[in-house]
Amino acid sequence: MTLPRRLAAEAIGSFFLFAAVIGSGIMAERLAGGNVAIALLANSIATGAILFVLIAVLAPLSGAHFNPAVSVALALRGRLAGRDLAPYILAQLAGGLLAVLATHAMFDLALLQWSAHARTGPGQWLAEGMATFGLVLAVFGMAGRPPAEAGGVIALYIVAAYWFAASTSFANPAITLARSLTDSFSGIARADVPAFVVAQLVGAALGALAARLLFPAPDVSR
Amino acid sequence: MTLPRRLAAEAIGSFFLFAAVIGSGIMAERLAGGNVAIALLANSIATGAILFVLIAVLAPLSGAHFNPAVSVALALRGRLAGRDLAPYILAQLAGGLLAVLATHAMFDLALLQWSAHARTGPGQWLAEGMATFGLVLAVFGMAGRPPAEAGGVIALYIVAAYWFAASTSFANPAITLARSLTDSFSGIARADVPAFVVAQLVGAALGALAARLLFPAPDVSR
Amino acid sequence: MTLPRRLAAEAIGSFFLFAAVIGSGIMAERLAGGNVAIALLANSIATGAILFVLIAVLAPLSGAHFNPAVSVALALRGRLAGRDLAPYILAQLAGGLLAVLATHAMFDLALLQWSAHARTGPGQWLAEGMATFGLVLAVFGMAGRPPAEAGGVIALYIVAAYWFAASTSFANPAITLARSLTDSFSGIARADVPAFVVAQLVGAALGALAARLLFPAPDVSR
Amino acid sequence: MTLPRRLAAEAIGSFFLFAAVIGSGIMAERLAGGNVAIALLANSIATGAILFVLIAVLAPLSGAHFNPAVSVALALRGRLAGRDLAPYILAQLAGGLLAVLATHAMFDLALLQWSAHARTGPGQWLAEGMATFGLVLAVFGMAGRPPAEAGGVIALYIVAAYWFAASTSFANPAITLARSLTDSFSGIARADVPAFVVAQLVGAALGALAARLLFPAPDVSR
Repeated sequence: MTLPRRLAAEAIGSFFLFAAVIGSGIMAERLAGGNVAIALLANSIATGAILFVLIAVLAPLSGAHFNPAVSVALALRGRLAGRDLAPYILAQLAGGLLAVLATHAMFDLALLQWSAHARTGPGQWLAEGMATFGLVLAVFGMAGRPPAEAGGVIALYIVAAYWFAASTSFANPAITLARSLTDSFSGIARADVPAFVVAQLVGAALGALAARLLFPAPDVSR
Repeated sequence: MTLPRRLAAEAIGSFFLFAAVIGSGIMAERLAGGNVAIALLANSIATGAILFVLIAVLAPLSGAHFNPAVSVALALRGRLAGRDLAPYILAQLAGGLLAVLATHAMFDLALLQWSAHARTGPGQWLAEGMATFGLVLAVFGMAGRPPAEAGGVIALYIVAAYWFAASTSFANPAITLARSLTDSFSGIARADVPAFVVAQLVGAALGALAARLLFPAPDVSR
Repeated sequence: MTLPRRLAAEAIGSFFLFAAVIGSGIMAERLAGGNVAIALLANSIATGAILFVLIAVLAPLSGAHFNPAVSVALALRGRLAGRDLAPYILAQLAGGLLAVLATHAMFDLALLQWSAHARTGPGQWLAEGMATFGLVLAVFGMAGRPPAEAGGVIALYIVAAYWFAASTSFANPAITLARSLTDSFSGIARADVPAFVVAQLVGAALGALAARLLFPAPDVSR
Repeated sequence: MTLPRRLAAEAIGSFFLFAAVIGSGIMAERLAGGNVAIALLANSIATGAILFVLIAVLAPLSGAHFNPAVSVALALRGRLAGRDLAPYILAQLAGGLLAVLATHAMFDLALLQWSAHARTGPGQWLAEGMATFGLVLAVFGMAGRPPAEAGGVIALYIVAAYWFAASTSFANPAITLARSLTDSFSGIARADVPAFVVAQLVGAALGALAARLLFPAPDVSR
């Protein structure tokens, strides 16, 4: 697989993933009449559904990361070439930021926004660390399995993490940044982004370590 | 597979798909007590569920398009014979229009109706274009996979698109036409149909182009 | 597989299926605070979930019918021996009626009840006919597929049919009878049972006929 | 597979399972605005989702029990070595109790709590017995199937049992104990724990017996 096609897959996947997270949040909040649980239910189901699709379709091309924390964890274990890490992250950011603009355009909102949604404190950071730890563990545990099966597992992990993580589980530095750019249901105030990203990277590193202990068999490239 | 059996599969599949979209919309709106998010949740889950069933069961017969935009995109790439395109679309329309009548009969509504639900504007058109682009990309990406796996991917794509697309994702010219004939939850005013169909066909054509770049391997007939 | 084990599988499966339909209806109605759409969403999800489980686990034993209409349709096509039809239906009824008692006991309700829930009229009957037609078509279409795949398809068919069929899709004469014995969310007045059963059997017969035209390949025993 | 790795898998799996059950209960109750059906819908979906993930990922390591009743039932049938039973249960309890602390920390709650939620009476006990009976039957029925398939079946069994069992289906002595330590949505008063555990163990033993009759083929180690 050539690098441009892999990067195109990461960008397109991040575009649809981020559009689904933000767009379904906007749609759900508009329709839910103030019942936040219903909005989060729709938001989590839509996110899980698109994530399954994108992994099933695009994993054979790029591995379907759509997430710098996953790319970093895979690079740490030698499953993503070091020279590909920065291009992967740039493709994820590019696709994801375009998704913010497209989603705002679809919903007739100002294209450029800053979120005012405060998400901070030790409980939130623990939640992000735990959620990303589990995500990375699941990614390594599914190495070598068929794309649709891996997609089902990762998608349903995120559905669950929306609900068990006190932060609703961002678990992805790129999406955290993108969500700081939307003043809607899924937003996060930009001042709260750095701590979230640190917690995610710590969780990802610990997850890669735990995966090394649990799944020591020779890695199979996804 | 003989053409009559393929057309029967397209007609029966379109019948149940369109009945599920429109019928679950009617049922959900009646029961939801004004909470539109709950109604859309039921509507999207029912649509995804029947779509999975119909693709798993009928894809081995006809490819399980149930959608002129998909048939056109496949014909553009040479995966549906040009001479079969018009019969496919006619079968989809026939099954789908019969579904409108049957659904109205089930719910004790007037058989013939025009929708008064305005759905228009650049945001809606962008949403239809994006949703159909992604649908076609997913269809091409799943070429050659087992029917149940393809069905799961396409079904969950539509579940997600109900929520991330500002238009709730029609993404299907035949269903757009059928939904202009029901003045219920899922309806669309007939004046708004042409722009939706144009946006869908543009999205489908761009999706077929992107699929050619992303998935250049020799096509395998579904 | 010996007949007693097959009948045990039909009885146990019908027990859990009917308990899930009736029990989740009671639970959902109690908790939903009058929002019937939320209750039906829980009811349909619980029914689909247990149906998938029971087919995946028990289809290798008995074929996992749990439904006289399905047994009759399979017997019509020679896929269930004629001499097994009555024992199958008796096992389904026995397991199902026990489920009514157990469910009422769990929820501290009178064990013996008659439903007062009227469900009648041409729209309802058309809905039952359509729902059973589609169910039988799906059953035949999945012949020879792995149990979990068939289970997923049949389960999601029922989830969809809860919402698109104006009757919420009983599609099963044994469960129709059992539901006449519970004055709770899923009940049906006993006077309305015969017409439902007739509609179901007509739908099943037409479904078996359509399946013969669509899937003429030699049948593979499930 | 070495015992330490198997125990690590049981502990990590129990950690995430119990965190999902309790955490999603807290999140759902906070957001649901008093509509308990919506809260239970989110709670059951999150639990099913994480259970599928944990079985798909960890079953190849430890069998993915996360439940003393399942471990006991498997030991009764000779599918878990007797000397491994106590270590398994200790690992499940250790992971699960840590999950209670972590979940309370995430949600900024007191780490140590006793539940005040009374759950008692014959109906509740019958529900726990039935739910655990069915769970054990499903576990034995899926013996030898691929991890993701078994995970899907067990996960959806629990989703259904949340709704059809009048107790919302604890069906797990370790989680029953852990839930006595949280005064939140999913809690149970400690005085009510022993009867629940007895009912679960009776159900598990009967389930193992029924499985022996239904699935007499030589056991295949999961």
